[in-house]
Amino acid sequence: MSDDISSIIDTLWTVLPRGGGRTIGLHEPEFGATERAYLLDCIDSTFVSSVGKYVDRFEQMLCDFTGAKRAVAVMNGTAALHIALQVAGVKTGDEVLVPDLTFIASANAVSYCGATPHFVDSNASTLGLDPEKVDRWLGETASVVDGVCRNKKTGARIAAVVPMHTFGHPVDLDALIDVAARWKLPIVEDAAESLGSYYKGKHTGRLGVMGVLSFNGNKTITTGGGGAVITDDVKLADRLKHLTTTAKVKHAWDFIHDEVGYNYRMPNLNAALGCAQMEKLPEFLAEKRALAAKYRAVFAGHPVAAFVDEPANSHSNFWLNVLLLRADKADLLPALLERTNAAGIGTRPVWTLMHKLPMYAHCPRMDVSTSEDLAHRLINVPSSAHLGRAHAA
Amino acid sequence: MSDDISSIIDTLWTVLPRGGGRTIGLHEPEFGATERAYLLDCIDSTFVSSVGKYVDRFEQMLCDFTGAKRAVAVMNGTAALHIALQVAGVKTGDEVLVPDLTFIASANAVSYCGATPHFVDSNASTLGLDPEKVDRWLGETASVVDGVCRNKKTGARIAAVVPMHTFGHPVDLDALIDVAARWKLPIVEDAAESLGSYYKGKHTGRLGVMGVLSFNGNKTITTGGGGAVITDDVKLADRLKHLTTTAKVKHAWDFIHDEVGYNYRMPNLNAALGCAQMEKLPEFLAEKRALAAKYRAVFAGHPVAAFVDEPANSHSNFWLNVLLLRADKADLLPALLERTNAAGIGTRPVWTLMHKLPMYAHCPRMDVSTSEDLAHRLINVPSSAHLGRAHAA
Repeated sequence: MSDDISSIIDTLWTVLPRGGGRTIGLHEPEFGATERAYLLDCIDSTFVSSVGKYVDRFEQMLCDFTGAKRAVAVMNGTAALHIALQVAGVKTGDEVLVPDLTFIASANAVSYCGATPHFVDSNASTLGLDPEKVDRWLGETASVVDGVCRNKKTGARIAAVVPMHTFGHPVDLDALIDVAARWKLPIVEDAAESLGSYYKGKHTGRLGVMGVLSFNGNKTITTGGGGAVITDDVKLADRLKHLTTTAKVKHAWDFIHDEVGYNYRMPNLNAALGCAQMEKLPEFLAEKRALAAKYRAVFAGHPVAAFVDEPANSHSNFWLNVLLLRADKADLLPALLERTNAAGIGTRPVWTLMHKLPMYAHCPRMDVSTSEDLAHRLINVPSSAHLGRAHAA
Repeated sequence: MSDDISSIIDTLWTVLPRGGGRTIGLHEPEFGATERAYLLDCIDSTFVSSVGKYVDRFEQMLCDFTGAKRAVAVMNGTAALHIALQVAGVKTGDEVLVPDLTFIASANAVSYCGATPHFVDSNASTLGLDPEKVDRWLGETASVVDGVCRNKKTGARIAAVVPMHTFGHPVDLDALIDVAARWKLPIVEDAAESLGSYYKGKHTGRLGVMGVLSFNGNKTITTGGGGAVITDDVKLADRLKHLTTTAKVKHAWDFIHDEVGYNYRMPNLNAALGCAQMEKLPEFLAEKRALAAKYRAVFAGHPVAAFVDEPANSHSNFWLNVLLLRADKADLLPALLERTNAAGIGTRPVWTLMHKLPMYAHCPRMDVSTSEDLAHRLINVPSSAHLGRAHAA
């Protein structure tokens, strides 16, 4: 066991730069002259809050980059997912299909709508929602009556499906689109981890009715805190903008709000940082791809740990590179986490499965044995763009 | 009528600097070398997101300034109010007493808890919730059984009362504390507008179980978007911190969340701006007080418009200075708004009363005739700190 762990750590060191004495973070942001210039310009303009040119510009840059018709910037990915679900029609009492293997925001956003997450299993190749298994599960559990998908056991409407592109790897979207169409479920893509990831040439988040992005500090680009919803549906975009700006009706001074809205708009200060980061995004993605190639190369044929590569038909941003322990070596994980972090290599396991958290333990779920298996064997390894830079070790 | 409006505008020009050609904003933020330095330092640290020294420092500065034991910084005042209500015990189906004359966030935060706002009237002197009227109204409407206040008509529990310190003027807190104690209602102070306002020497937000602050772009100080909850109750503060950080249990790498939490934490980037602004707060407050003194002086004895001064027992931050039209001159308001804004003097009316908005029209409410009257007669006038500076006109 000790030899297995040493072998993994030694292999990691062939990719990672030794020395410096500080821990190599899992994903570190990087800022330069442009970030400084835009932040100072923002301050000089005095427009740091909910109005300002950087928000508009950041949204336009997101559209230009992803190809989406509209982008609505908000304060973080959780807020983006909450508002996207609401605009997709999720209501109190509904259920929403969410992967069991995901970050807590996926389930919480459903809860904020007064709805219940209904957990589904992952696919071992994509790490994300498995369309075939979901289809079979719905066949056992649900029925479509008058165009409405309903859980036959709970009686609740199943209102949407939320695939999450785990660590940047796209789920099998063609298959999911087919399943969702048959079960009359709108797809809201949780692309919080997959800015710069494509499925058959189309940016993730653009294959569902809406897609959600995140610009948290550990993401491929960051705005401090930030998120966005992208969509090709202009009417939905207008709804998103309205709901995220307190549902205020435009007027020079009157305060008319026509529904319960949210104060979710991204501040101009954060958008200024985002604009500078967007300019760097192509470079970051190339570097992250180069880093992934190094991991792929050094772990090829490794006896214990395999590099989890991008799935078929997809181009991943390799947000967080991830290794999969051999099935009979899953018990190495706790010690591997301990020893890598002690050695100054920032690693982490995947999230605790949603159904294992106390507040979601009683939610409906299918057999999630693939997620269970993956959760015991996956480990994220350092993935900052600069680690893939030409001059890096 | 035209003469009345001209007289008000002429009087405003005796306080405000003429020239420049641009509109004098209602409340403009001001940044200098310290804001620039802290933002650049934050960028250089690479800690721009949910972890970083500026968040801790900003929270400590808020404690030092207000005297509160704890402050929990979040992404805006709306989020702060939502989480404070939740921690105060507001649950789905409850009612919460909220002024009818307030910003939309007061009512929306109640809605986010699944509760219903129950609108109460304002006092003509404080512009905020009127404790005596609320007491009478509860006498007609509510009863306390086994320590629980219940609306006899709707059957709902009345779970809290949320006074809002309108434009910085504190409500009559001693009277409210007495009423709230008799009706077993926790007080959550909406001090979003009253950073630097005191009631009998104690900072607003510290007389209830929790107080909510806002640092939106138009507030006395700004973090771009930002808010905080202050409290002297360490246990409540721990709950606030836990719930605003996705209810994640501390661990170096494991993801355990023990309840439905929120991603509400203030990013370090925004806190960096906040730290710089806090250093300027005493100066801003002195300047705003000087500006208020000018308005008070020039509108003393004005035949049509009266300056609304700070209430008894209180020291206001004069966040937004406000004029009250003579009762028989209320019909001047629309034209006064048009003409002042056309003349380059930023003004606005108070908010549309909550019960007049479609989503809150059917909520329980008492007679709100004072609010109705005030809403037709109040007008905010330019209130930026720099307008009170010694060298200003």
